[in-house]
Amino acid sequence: MSYRRTIKIVCGFAGGSAVLVVAAAAAEYQGCFGHTRAARWSLFNVLQAAQPAGNRTVESTGNAWDFNWDKRDPSALLTNGKKKEVVSEDPSSEQDNGKPKATRNILLIRHSQYNLSGNGDHERILTPLGREQAEFTGQRLAALGLKYDIMVHSTMARATETANIISKYLPGVELVSCDLLREGAPIQPVPPVTHWKPDAVQYHEDGARIEAAFRRYIHRADPKQEEDSYEIIVCHANVIRYFVCRALQFPPEGWLRIGLNNGSITWLTVRPSGRVALRTLGDSGFMPPDKLTRT
Amino acid sequence: MSYRRTIKIVCGFAGGSAVLVVAAAAAEYQGCFGHTRAARWSLFNVLQAAQPAGNRTVESTGNAWDFNWDKRDPSALLTNGKKKEVVSEDPSSEQDNGKPKATRNILLIRHSQYNLSGNGDHERILTPLGREQAEFTGQRLAALGLKYDIMVHSTMARATETANIISKYLPGVELVSCDLLREGAPIQPVPPVTHWKPDAVQYHEDGARIEAAFRRYIHRADPKQEEDSYEIIVCHANVIRYFVCRALQFPPEGWLRIGLNNGSITWLTVRPSGRVALRTLGDSGFMPPDKLTRT
Repeated sequence: MSYRRTIKIVCGFAGGSAVLVVAAAAAEYQGCFGHTRAARWSLFNVLQAAQPAGNRTVESTGNAWDFNWDKRDPSALLTNGKKKEVVSEDPSSEQDNGKPKATRNILLIRHSQYNLSGNGDHERILTPLGREQAEFTGQRLAALGLKYDIMVHSTMARATETANIISKYLPGVELVSCDLLREGAPIQPVPPVTHWKPDAVQYHEDGARIEAAFRRYIHRADPKQEEDSYEIIVCHANVIRYFVCRALQFPPEGWLRIGLNNGSITWLTVRPSGRVALRTLGDSGFMPPDKLTRT
Repeated sequence: MSYRRTIKIVCGFAGGSAVLVVAAAAAEYQGCFGHTRAARWSLFNVLQAAQPAGNRTVESTGNAWDFNWDKRDPSALLTNGKKKEVVSEDPSSEQDNGKPKATRNILLIRHSQYNLSGNGDHERILTPLGREQAEFTGQRLAALGLKYDIMVHSTMARATETANIISKYLPGVELVSCDLLREGAPIQPVPPVTHWKPDAVQYHEDGARIEAAFRRYIHRADPKQEEDSYEIIVCHANVIRYFVCRALQFPPEGWLRIGLNNGSITWLTVRPSGRVALRTLGDSGFMPPDKLTRT
C-alpha cells in the first residue's frame, strides 16, 4: 500500500537523527557549535528540505490572557476604585472576602439523540437510542462521584428529557431550567459552511442570548463560595462549542471547528484566579461504540 | 446553601421570559416593535441590568480560515503556477489527480501514567496503573472498530511502552517510532504559569521540532490516497495540545489552557478541503473513574 510506504519512508528519516538535526540547526543560530561553515549549512539544508514552506517556528499571536474576562478580577475592582473605601476600613478582611478561593467545575452535557423530523421543538423528542445514551451519561456522572451542586438545562424538549433521565442517577441534585441555554446560531462560523446558513436575524438574536448565557454561567467563583463546586449544564452543541471558545479566549467564530457526540461530557474548570482549563471535550468513551451518534 | 440560592434566583429570572426580553431588545435596535419609547427602554434596561459590562455581543476576530495551512491546497498550487502546464495537457485527469478526496482521521493518544521520579527517560517507565490504563485505551481503540493504517509513537519510554500495550489489541497495525514526537516545550504559554518555566533554549529547540512534527503528521490527505485513513499517534500532553491549537488555527500559545488525562483519545479529522474538526479531546470515559490520572 503506497500510502503506508510513504509514512514509513518519512519516519525512517525521523527515527534516527531528526531531533539532533533540529537541535543542531537551532543551536546553529546561536553560533554555539564548532562545525565549519559548510557543515553548518549542510545541517541547515537538511532541516530546510524537510520543511520547505514558511517559517520554521510559529510565533505567538501576541494576545495576552484577559484575567478580567468575567469582570470578577478583584485587582481590577480595586483599580477602578470601587473597593477602595472598603480597603481603607479594614484591609485584611477585605482581602479575605474580596478574592475568590474556590474552583468552579462546569460539566457541559450535549443532549442525546432526538427525532430530527419532528414538527417543532415539542415533537423533537429523544429517540429510543437517545434515551439509552442519556442513561449512559447519567451513570457516568454518578460514577465520577462528584458533589454536584446543581443541574441546569435548556428548556428545549431534547435537553429537558436528557436532563430528566440523568437526574435519576443524581438524586438530591437540584434541577433548574433556563431559556438562555436553548440552541441557536451564536456567531457566523469561520470557515463558513454551505449546508447551514442561518439568516442574519438569527445570529443577531441568538448571538446576544447565547453570549448572555455564557456570562451568566461561565465565570470564576464568587468570593463567598467556600468550597469547589461541580455544576452540570445540559444543553446544545452550538452553545457548548461557543462556550468553550469564549472560555478559553479562542476565536469565538471557530466554534464550528469542534464536533460533539450526543450525550458527551465537556468539562471546564474556572480557577479563583480566572484561569480556565478545558479538561475534556466531547467525552463519550463511557458509551459502547455502537451507541455513539452526532446528530 | 447560599451558593445554590443565588443560582436559583438568577435562573428564576431566566426561566420565564429572558429569551423574549433578549429578542425584544435585539429587535428594538431595528425599530420593528410597536411599543412606546418608554416601554422599549424598559426592556432594554432589563437586559442591560442582567449584563452590566461591555458589549452585549461578541465580534469575530476577523481572521479568516487559511485553507492553505498545510501547503496542500490544490487551488493555491494552481495559482502559483506549478500545475499550469499539467492542466493544459489534460485538464480532466489533472483535476482528478490533483485534488485530495480522502479524509484523514488522526487519533492522538496521551501516554499513560509513568514513574515521575525516574532518573532520565529510560527510568520513567509506566506505573502498574499506567500499564492498566494502556490496556483500557487499547481495548477502546479496538472496540471502535476502525481500519487503522498505522500507529506512530514518540521514542520516549512512556510513549513506547503505551504503544506496545495498545498494539496487542490492534494486530496487524504497523508500529513506527518517531523522535519528532518527543515531549517538550512547544511555545511560551499564555497566560504564563509559575510552576513550569523552561529555559528559552528549550522553547527554541523544542518549538521548532514540535512544529516540524505538526507539519509532518497533521495535514490533508495526499491526492493519491483513495480511502479515508485512521492513524494513531501515541505521544505527549504538550505535543497533543499544541497540535490541536495549530490544527484548529487557534492561538498556539493557548495550548496550556487544555488538560489531558493519561491514556486519553483526542480525535482530529482533516477533510480533503483542508477543513479540520476536533471530534473529541481527552476522551477517557472508557476508563473506570478510579483509574483516571493526569500526571
